Amino acid sequence: MQKRSKETRTQIISAALVLFAREGYDATGVAEICQAAGVSKGAFYYHFSSKQQVFMQLLNDWLGTLEAQLLDIQKQIQDVPQALLHMAGMMQAVFEQASGNLPMFLEFWTQASRDPAIWQLVTAPYQSYQEFFKTLIQKGIKEGSLQTYDPDIAAHALVALAVGLLFQGVLNPQHKDWARVPAQSVQILLSGLAKK
Amino acid sequence: MQKRSKETRTQIISAALVLFAREGYDATGVAEICQAAGVSKGAFYYHFSSKQQVFMQLLNDWLGTLEAQLLDIQKQIQDVPQALLHMAGMMQAVFEQASGNLPMFLEFWTQASRDPAIWQLVTAPYQSYQEFFKTLIQKGIKEGSLQTYDPDIAAHALVALAVGLLFQGVLNPQHKDWARVPAQSVQILLSGLAKK
Repeated sequence: MQKRSKETRTQIISAALVLFAREGYDATGVAEICQAAGVSKGAFYYHFSSKQQVFMQLLNDWLGTLEAQLLDIQKQIQDVPQALLHMAGMMQAVFEQASGNLPMFLEFWTQASRDPAIWQLVTAPYQSYQEFFKTLIQKGIKEGSLQTYDPDIAAHALVALAVGLLFQGVLNPQHKDWARVPAQSVQILLSGLAKK
Repeated sequence: MQKRSKETRTQIISAALVLFAREGYDATGVAEICQAAGVSKGAFYYHFSSKQQVFMQLLNDWLGTLEAQLLDIQKQIQDVPQALLHMAGMMQAVFEQASGNLPMFLEFWTQASRDPAIWQLVTAPYQSYQEFFKTLIQKGIKEGSLQTYDPDIAAHALVALAVGLLFQGVLNPQHKDWARVPAQSVQILLSGLAKK
C-alpha cells in the first residue's frame, strides 16, 4: 500500500474508534466516519466494504497488540507458571482499555450474532487464545512445572477465568481491588495446576 | 393476586419468552406479546410497565431457579469442596438453557447499558452470586476444608470462572467436552483453593 493510502486507512480507523465509543456502533454510519476522518466515501469503500469491517479491524488491532504482549512475556520468562502470573498482571490495563466501551461491543455482537459468517470471524480470535494457552500448558507439563491435567481443559479453565474477570471488570470498573483480583485469581488456579 | 390475574401474568411471560427467543428482543413489541398471549393491552399494562420489565421478570425467574438449586446443593452437602463440585455439575444444564438465546440477551443488554438505572437492576443478581460464593468460601475456611485466601477474591475467581465457562458454552455449544470441561475446570480451581 502506498504511504498516502495507508494514512487514509489509519484516519478512517481512528475516526471510527472515536465515533463508535462516543455515539455507539448502531448510531455511527459510514457518512459520519468519512466526515470525521476527512475522507470521501470513495476512499472509504476503497479500503473497507462496510463499517462492520472497520470494527473488525479495530478489534483485530487490539487483539493483535494483546497477543504480541503475551508472546513477549512468553519469550522473556521461560518458567510457565511465572509467565502465566505475569500475563495476569496485564489484565488491569486490559480492563482500563475495555472500560466504557461495553455498549459499543454489545451493539456490534448483536449484529454479528445475526450473521453466522461474521460470527465465525468474531469468535476466531477466541479460538486462537485457547490454542495459545493450550500450547503454553503443554510446555509447562513437559518442563515439569505443571500437573498433567488435560491441556485442552486446563486452557479452557484459564481462558474462562480471564474472560470472566474481564466481564467483571467491565461490569464493575470502580471495584477497589482490580489491581489484586486478577493476579490472585490466576494464582489460585495456578496453585491447582502447578506441581506440588 | 387473584387466580385469574396470576394466570394472565403467566401467559404474558410465557408468550414473551417464546417471542424474544424466536424474533429477538428488539423485534418483539408489546402488541405482539399481547396477541400471542391472548390478552388485552390493558391487561398487559396492569401487570408490567414495559416489555423490558417482562424480560427482567424472565431473567429473575431463571436466576431464581438457579439460586434455589444452588441452595439445595448447599443444604444437602455440608463439605464445601464437594458442594462446589456438585454446583459445577449444574453448568451443562445451564449451557443448554442459554444456548441459542445469545442474540436475545445481547439486544437486551445493549438497551440496558444505555440506562444506568436498568443496568443497576440487571447486574444486581451478579452481586448476589458473588455474595453467595463468598459466604460459601468463608464457611469452607471455617470448617478447615479451604485455604485462607481472601474470601472476596476467591469468590471473584469462582464466579469469573463460571461466567467465562458460560460464555464459552454459548460461543461454542457444539464443543464435545461440555460434560467434562466445567467440572474439571472447577476441580483445578478447587485443587488450588483446598487445604493440601
